[in-house]
Amino acid sequence: MLVVAGTHGNERNAPWLLQHWQHQPENLASAGLQLELALGNPAAFAANQRYMERDLNRSFRPDLLADPQARGPDLQRARQLLALHGPAGERPCSVVFDLHSTTSAMGNSLVLYGRRPADLALAAALQGRLGLPIYLHEGDSSQSGFLVERWTCGLVIEVGPVPQGVIQAPICRHTQLALEAALAVLADARQRRVRLLPRLVVHRHLGSLDLPRAGDGTPLACIHPQRQHRDWRPIRAGDPLFEQPGGEVIPYRPTADLEAAAARGEVVPVFINEAAYGEKGIALSLTQREVLPCEASWAEALISVATRLRLAEGQGRGGPL
Amino acid sequence: MLVVAGTHGNERNAPWLLQHWQHQPENLASAGLQLELALGNPAAFAANQRYMERDLNRSFRPDLLADPQARGPDLQRARQLLALHGPAGERPCSVVFDLHSTTSAMGNSLVLYGRRPADLALAAALQGRLGLPIYLHEGDSSQSGFLVERWTCGLVIEVGPVPQGVIQAPICRHTQLALEAALAVLADARQRRVRLLPRLVVHRHLGSLDLPRAGDGTPLACIHPQRQHRDWRPIRAGDPLFEQPGGEVIPYRPTADLEAAAARGEVVPVFINEAAYGEKGIALSLTQREVLPCEASWAEALISVATRLRLAEGQGRGGPL
Repeated sequence: MLVVAGTHGNERNAPWLLQHWQHQPENLASAGLQLELALGNPAAFAANQRYMERDLNRSFRPDLLADPQARGPDLQRARQLLALHGPAGERPCSVVFDLHSTTSAMGNSLVLYGRRPADLALAAALQGRLGLPIYLHEGDSSQSGFLVERWTCGLVIEVGPVPQGVIQAPICRHTQLALEAALAVLADARQRRVRLLPRLVVHRHLGSLDLPRAGDGTPLACIHPQRQHRDWRPIRAGDPLFEQPGGEVIPYRPTADLEAAAARGEVVPVFINEAAYGEKGIALSLTQREVLPCEASWAEALISVATRLRLAEGQGRGGPL
Repeated sequence: MLVVAGTHGNERNAPWLLQHWQHQPENLASAGLQLELALGNPAAFAANQRYMERDLNRSFRPDLLADPQARGPDLQRARQLLALHGPAGERPCSVVFDLHSTTSAMGNSLVLYGRRPADLALAAALQGRLGLPIYLHEGDSSQSGFLVERWTCGLVIEVGPVPQGVIQAPICRHTQLALEAALAVLADARQRRVRLLPRLVVHRHLGSLDLPRAGDGTPLACIHPQRQHRDWRPIRAGDPLFEQPGGEVIPYRPTADLEAAAARGEVVPVFINEAAYGEKGIALSLTQREVLPCEASWAEALISVATRLRLAEGQGRGGPL
């Protein structure tokens, strides 16, 4: 079990918790599991910036990792994390939780990368326990190389809104709550107990929208105030989307392939106005709400992963296992 | 008249407005006054960071500005701003508004540096029009060298909360509202019309509190959730101030000299959990609420400054002057 905080160095809440857990392990209910705690990008954390030269959480592409010409501090750190804690690392971990925060009003949420069965079981069990919304990221070649993809099983816990560089107690609480629930799910799965609801609700990534921009890149509009802080709420044709400086509204106009879904209230924006995504040309991402029947094979996949997890030695909290 | 936006390069709202006003001057109600619009720190703005090497808004100390050994891009920019737009500059300005945003919940507010009579009149007139709260910064040798101090008259318009690097329409609206009101006050004063309420309410800077920290600088607690976003609200002895990661509360304990004022509800925190102040060792600043009788000499000082302001040529909006 690996827990990573500070993959982005200016997301300060999870790293602060991590430092605290390193000093006082009894303050994290680990459900008896042995945990490796890692600060994702120590150099970026020290500089209080997202990354040094390239986004660490876009650096886990196999082709990049294998390319001896590809260097730089962030990519080196990606390789180091894998060498230390990867599935074939010095202290091998098969499961990873990557703790993030965002300036968007995502609340307490999960991000899944693709549809690996064990990930789906973990997400479904967490949704069953805490009701967390799930952003299913897949099929976007412009955004790839995410950390959790290099472990056998894993997901991102994403909490917001909180400014970059700021620690806020409720953000920390949500983060810890989601992590502890995830650890409890894994400890149960290690004992072959996986309880899934019949259905899993996911928000499947469709693509991203940028702000309207002038030729020199200057934004010509910003997120409309009626859309700001409305992550996870459906957007329909004609809803205010952007606002020009003079107050003129630019409404949402779905592309032809999304018209029907938008009319049904199934098109849902996420990561609205995330500070770090401006440079990526992302004002928000659009998702489609989907209900998946939970499959028995998911639980089996999670059990297969979880039964290989090790127990902590001499840790009291979390109950007997 | 000088309007500066982006003195801190990661405060994006005012620079965005500024770009807009440069292209469409009719969208700023300038009350007929001729305005110089300046991007405070273009290099930091391009890098989307607060400053390059030192905080530009702590770089306007006369000793620093005059020291040929003191260099660096931010200090050079301070000298350049003065050479271009200072009271003795190429395009001389006597009044400056410096537009800032903050991650703290300061709302729409003004910051005064010291008690220059014209500044006090301007602030009092703005408080009369819009009810803006005023932070009076004075007597803190650890924080000095603010931009507005080098102009004859000027103040900071400070709006929050908004994350660094994020544009939000309501933040822009508040900024524009305060600036336009300030320009209207000056245009009136230019015609010798200054209307002040009998009293001005200010929050006088007392000093700043840091988070409790370990020897290596790691915070041992964060702002208590009952204090987060409660800028401008009085704090009393025993009120929750910080929270440790395990949930333990550290209450506010006023120093002996503040006990009586705190009991009267006159001790008021501002800039609570501002992202950029962590590195300055400031978790919040404490102020004392004070009511000052408005003096006729303030209005005279403002009129003396305002009557030297120039009118714009050929600008329609703002009414005849």
